[in-house]
Amino acid sequence: MLLDPKNQERILSIQSHVAFGYVGGKAAVFPLQCLGFDVDVVNTVNFSNHSGYGRFGGTRTTADDLERIFQHMEENGLLSPTRLLTGYVPGAPALAAVAQLATTLRQRNPDLVYLLDPDIPPAVLGDAGKLYVAPDVIPIYRSLLPQATVITPNWFEVEVLTQIELKDMSSLRAAIRILHDEYKVPNVVVSSIALKPWLFEALPLCLRPTSPDHPSPEEISSEYLLSICSSNNHANADPVDTSSVHVYLIPFIPGYFSGVGDLFSALVLAHLQPDPKPEPDQTPLSRATTMAIDKTHAILELTQKAAKLLPEEDRLPTDDEQDAVDVDRVVRRMRGRELKLIQGQDIIRSKDLTDKSRRMEPWTTF
Amino acid sequence: MLLDPKNQERILSIQSHVAFGYVGGKAAVFPLQCLGFDVDVVNTVNFSNHSGYGRFGGTRTTADDLERIFQHMEENGLLSPTRLLTGYVPGAPALAAVAQLATTLRQRNPDLVYLLDPDIPPAVLGDAGKLYVAPDVIPIYRSLLPQATVITPNWFEVEVLTQIELKDMSSLRAAIRILHDEYKVPNVVVSSIALKPWLFEALPLCLRPTSPDHPSPEEISSEYLLSICSSNNHANADPVDTSSVHVYLIPFIPGYFSGVGDLFSALVLAHLQPDPKPEPDQTPLSRATTMAIDKTHAILELTQKAAKLLPEEDRLPTDDEQDAVDVDRVVRRMRGRELKLIQGQDIIRSKDLTDKSRRMEPWTTF
Repeated sequence: MLLDPKNQERILSIQSHVAFGYVGGKAAVFPLQCLGFDVDVVNTVNFSNHSGYGRFGGTRTTADDLERIFQHMEENGLLSPTRLLTGYVPGAPALAAVAQLATTLRQRNPDLVYLLDPDIPPAVLGDAGKLYVAPDVIPIYRSLLPQATVITPNWFEVEVLTQIELKDMSSLRAAIRILHDEYKVPNVVVSSIALKPWLFEALPLCLRPTSPDHPSPEEISSEYLLSICSSNNHANADPVDTSSVHVYLIPFIPGYFSGVGDLFSALVLAHLQPDPKPEPDQTPLSRATTMAIDKTHAILELTQKAAKLLPEEDRLPTDDEQDAVDVDRVVRRMRGRELKLIQGQDIIRSKDLTDKSRRMEPWTTF
Repeated sequence: MLLDPKNQERILSIQSHVAFGYVGGKAAVFPLQCLGFDVDVVNTVNFSNHSGYGRFGGTRTTADDLERIFQHMEENGLLSPTRLLTGYVPGAPALAAVAQLATTLRQRNPDLVYLLDPDIPPAVLGDAGKLYVAPDVIPIYRSLLPQATVITPNWFEVEVLTQIELKDMSSLRAAIRILHDEYKVPNVVVSSIALKPWLFEALPLCLRPTSPDHPSPEEISSEYLLSICSSNNHANADPVDTSSVHVYLIPFIPGYFSGVGDLFSALVLAHLQPDPKPEPDQTPLSRATTMAIDKTHAILELTQKAAKLLPEEDRLPTDDEQDAVDVDRVVRRMRGRELKLIQGQDIIRSKDLTDKSRRMEPWTTF
């Protein structure tokens, strides 16, 4: 057993289910089980495959269905998880049902470790060609934020939740401060941020990536993604002084892989543990995020390696024009890029980092 | 990796899903994943917990829903599993949809390894106090049998499928022969049979359990369950001569545990492999069944050990009168008896037997 068996941890995971492939619960549950957690699994949709294939379908679990499942679990005394993980929930009524449950579980157990992945689909283009988000889910997510122990929004979700356009360091600082102070989220992880020039310039010199072949910031930027985590100790009167920001430069792997965020969030939750040997420059969140990035990156490398062995027709690059006239082109690419979670399960179980040279580093000048 | 990564095996599992605990897919999928299989998971129900709790609920997947999921998978080229596992499907229309898919997959791939667990719920009592089975699912199961590579019925399901009451050796022989010859099932495993006196007496002397303290067959019988497997090679003209029957005596663990059959069936399917080092007295089926019994038994022992550590109120024995007036009594017992799959995952992954002294032994006089 990887985890102390006396430490009977139980995670309630509420997210999407697909029959084929690895997104949502299919990307999260197996890794959590491998790491020793009993996982209770409520499926918010039951689809054939993820939406990136273009063709997909199945059933959505209604708010009534979810409430009935929660109620039976409650009656049977089966709603005492030590951790809660919520991901994609389709539509405002179902999301409200999940929010109600999360609030109940938080009231019941102040020690509940709740990872909220505010999965806000940005895919719909509005009339004006702008990103359009179903507006009814946003207030529900905002009202749910104070229940969370840790959230893992992407760049876009930070902008939507805080209503701040992230265009420079001061807007980034303001957005993270709003999440900590206004929405009372103690731990924020923003994963997979493009290393824009203004971010590159703001990094402390010692953290900037160097490359002898590519002298310009723009070129170096394209080789890395950035992950930022920020922990805030509300016990202290001055939240600004007690927040701790860490950053990790992730070598960029080209291509779009689905389920990466779901795997990453599950791993952050699994590795968010009290620090047995506290290091002065690390927090429990920075340690968990380091583990999660390292394992997710290693799984992605394995997936990319496997995809390269496929016949050429199964790994044609994204080409919007070609993809539009040949739907099967997209499907073949998607199939070849399903995460190699099963083949990489030893990576998931590992207690050690695959890449010991990288970790979340304190961004003291943030 | 436990399995050869070049051997890209993929299992399509179609069975029930519960949010809490380990029955159906929750008992089968994680073990299969641990053993290196990519598993595609279609949920035939999405319930809160298993029905043994008394209180349970959620949604059943309709025939239309199932067909839609299968159709999308088909359109996306995602229906090429090397193995198929089907368990509980609620109601005749949904079962017919699954049967249609199984038939299609079999036609497409003669090498498909299909484990059919004919999960026929015997729970409903008819007017006359006799076991009553919804009669509309039986003909569907019978029509599906010829598609199966291996089936894992229990005692009751053998009786229902063959319409033979198992009361002596000749009826047992006749029932297994019908499954092989009339229904063309090459591999039959009947698990967890009570070691009735007539079975005990029919066992070859060398296979009979002995116990110095309990001289009577009745007393010895109560300490063991029997598992029988039979493989039939249809290539030979005389099916009786070429069938190979094996038997395993399983030390009885008292108490009712749910999901045991689902775990067992998954493990039979996972371990049913071409024999790398054929032993003269073993078949691929007998080897797979030995592994499945050994691991299932070890998980049950772990579960029982954990249950014994619970507070007394969570492990009160079955008492129909007490249970009827105190539903929570049942619920607490069920909760304490959920399989310890996560804590026992090293058992599942093991390549070795936990108990090397026992295996499926040839029953040459069957």
